[in-house]
Amino acid sequence: MRIHIQNHPRQPPVFLVTPEQWAEAAERAGAEGAGHRVSFGASEVEFAAVGETIEVLIAGPAALKHLLPALQPDRAPALRFIFSTAAGVDGLAPADVPPVPFANNRGAHAEKAGEFVTMALLMLANDMPQCIEDQKKRHWGQGFTRGLRGRRLTVLGLGAMGGAAAEQAAHFGMRVTGIRATPAPHHACERVVGIEVLDEVLAETEFLLLSCPLTPATRKILDRRRIGLLPPGACVVNIGRGPLIDQDALCDALDAEKLGGAVLDVFDPEPVPEDDRIWTTRRMVMTPHVSVDDAVTYIPRSLDIFFANLNAFRRGAPLLTPVDFSRGY
Amino acid sequence: MRIHIQNHPRQPPVFLVTPEQWAEAAERAGAEGAGHRVSFGASEVEFAAVGETIEVLIAGPAALKHLLPALQPDRAPALRFIFSTAAGVDGLAPADVPPVPFANNRGAHAEKAGEFVTMALLMLANDMPQCIEDQKKRHWGQGFTRGLRGRRLTVLGLGAMGGAAAEQAAHFGMRVTGIRATPAPHHACERVVGIEVLDEVLAETEFLLLSCPLTPATRKILDRRRIGLLPPGACVVNIGRGPLIDQDALCDALDAEKLGGAVLDVFDPEPVPEDDRIWTTRRMVMTPHVSVDDAVTYIPRSLDIFFANLNAFRRGAPLLTPVDFSRGY
Repeated sequence: MRIHIQNHPRQPPVFLVTPEQWAEAAERAGAEGAGHRVSFGASEVEFAAVGETIEVLIAGPAALKHLLPALQPDRAPALRFIFSTAAGVDGLAPADVPPVPFANNRGAHAEKAGEFVTMALLMLANDMPQCIEDQKKRHWGQGFTRGLRGRRLTVLGLGAMGGAAAEQAAHFGMRVTGIRATPAPHHACERVVGIEVLDEVLAETEFLLLSCPLTPATRKILDRRRIGLLPPGACVVNIGRGPLIDQDALCDALDAEKLGGAVLDVFDPEPVPEDDRIWTTRRMVMTPHVSVDDAVTYIPRSLDIFFANLNAFRRGAPLLTPVDFSRGY
Repeated sequence: MRIHIQNHPRQPPVFLVTPEQWAEAAERAGAEGAGHRVSFGASEVEFAAVGETIEVLIAGPAALKHLLPALQPDRAPALRFIFSTAAGVDGLAPADVPPVPFANNRGAHAEKAGEFVTMALLMLANDMPQCIEDQKKRHWGQGFTRGLRGRRLTVLGLGAMGGAAAEQAAHFGMRVTGIRATPAPHHACERVVGIEVLDEVLAETEFLLLSCPLTPATRKILDRRRIGLLPPGACVVNIGRGPLIDQDALCDALDAEKLGGAVLDVFDPEPVPEDDRIWTTRRMVMTPHVSVDDAVTYIPRSLDIFFANLNAFRRGAPLLTPVDFSRGY
């Protein structure tokens, strides 16, 4: 097929598809990877030169957002399939996305997400936020902590990332409650419940993980009222999107010592402004939106997921990782 | 039997044996826990009042060190067995320890040690030392990192703690090399080698865990020369004892950016003096000797190990966790 890969010039290298990575992935894909005509672009001019002919587009969200006008049927008449090299599509207005099958790379983040959440849970259980604070003050403050076994984790969003996190938590003997739109059982969860009982679950949550997509339904899902439902000393981890949380209310709860700590990888807004109070909020550990993107495996795994979807698409089978813009993920 | 439990008044509560914990452990031990005459003490005066009659002593290292003169055959003629509620006995001069069977609680720390080392490895792999530094400076510095799969961990000291850490590392797909005095295979290690090839192993070590006892043979085992054998960017974790490392040489290597980071729970000396350079050494994460002692399970697990040893002792079988003062552990 006629495939075009559009990189965004200002993206970090971890998110750029190189011709070498493409060649290796095509070889891994076997027959599915052979016989394509492939071009690479990094500017709108480069895209315009090929827009009329391409059938398949591979791009990250920044490139996609820029290209949306050029992807409409009048300007990209042969376009039949779009693959996003990112899982979150909350930056794309559904009305602007051309009406062709659309898949994302969800699953590519799973292993790294499982590791990052494990780190975050262990840092919170070991009271690392306090240790970091003490080290800054040259203070030897011996506080002894409990391990993870038997403790309660709630995973809000049981997709590839939340599922991988739940598996690691179960490995360490935690009791995991999963929350998702369709509450089917999950092998790593003691129970899976629907979003309608979120308030009840929060009241018995020691550790809360946010790993759901950002949609109109999940925006500020952890608002001030719900933060107030968490037991004293509860801890929060966010690897989804910053606006899932009322960030100001979370900072209030931490500074008032109502919560035990937080490890956040995503913020509202990003990058975090220099004068934001969150930088110095008590027991707050921040990572700059890097938690789930493995510097080495991210693009290779994404391309493997692309080829699996391409195979389904060409057979007329359902896509493996379709994006449904009416749900927002 | 006539059992005495000596607590040290200035120890943190996590290390104190309460009558309730003793009663619960005795019940768990079944027949082995029944029929003993038990006393508790927290001062030398309290000990002196019972010293002549006791057959079994349970105490932590601080209490033991104080009691050593009172434990000699002339003053404690009935003493037949000592159990230490700590694994490290490096604070006790071998010549001063009375010549009776001596066991420690090694194994009580294993699960917590496995969790702490997992946290440390993930913090280092995720470049948390840099994230912590960046947060302090209100700097949004996006660096992407690799997961643990396939990466090389060397575990120096494959006892209960090192073994548990190796198991967790293997769970995350790391390639683990174990180093111990008697290089028998270990199920979580790709290979186990003797201490005589330490230098060669260091040269291919991405993450180095020190989890061995402190003895004359291991003091400063990671000296300046050996730190220099580690590849650029290698990371160090220490849950053993501070003097295993030439701390000044480690700080030099970190400040010179030759190493990628360190997570240390133990130091030389402790508590760390306020003016020690280590507090502000680059990419250094410090915890105040709390990593492997679970606030809830530490004493219950230690007492379970005590009863298992008591059972062996009374049957005339080898102790389960004997301390050999000629080896130092």
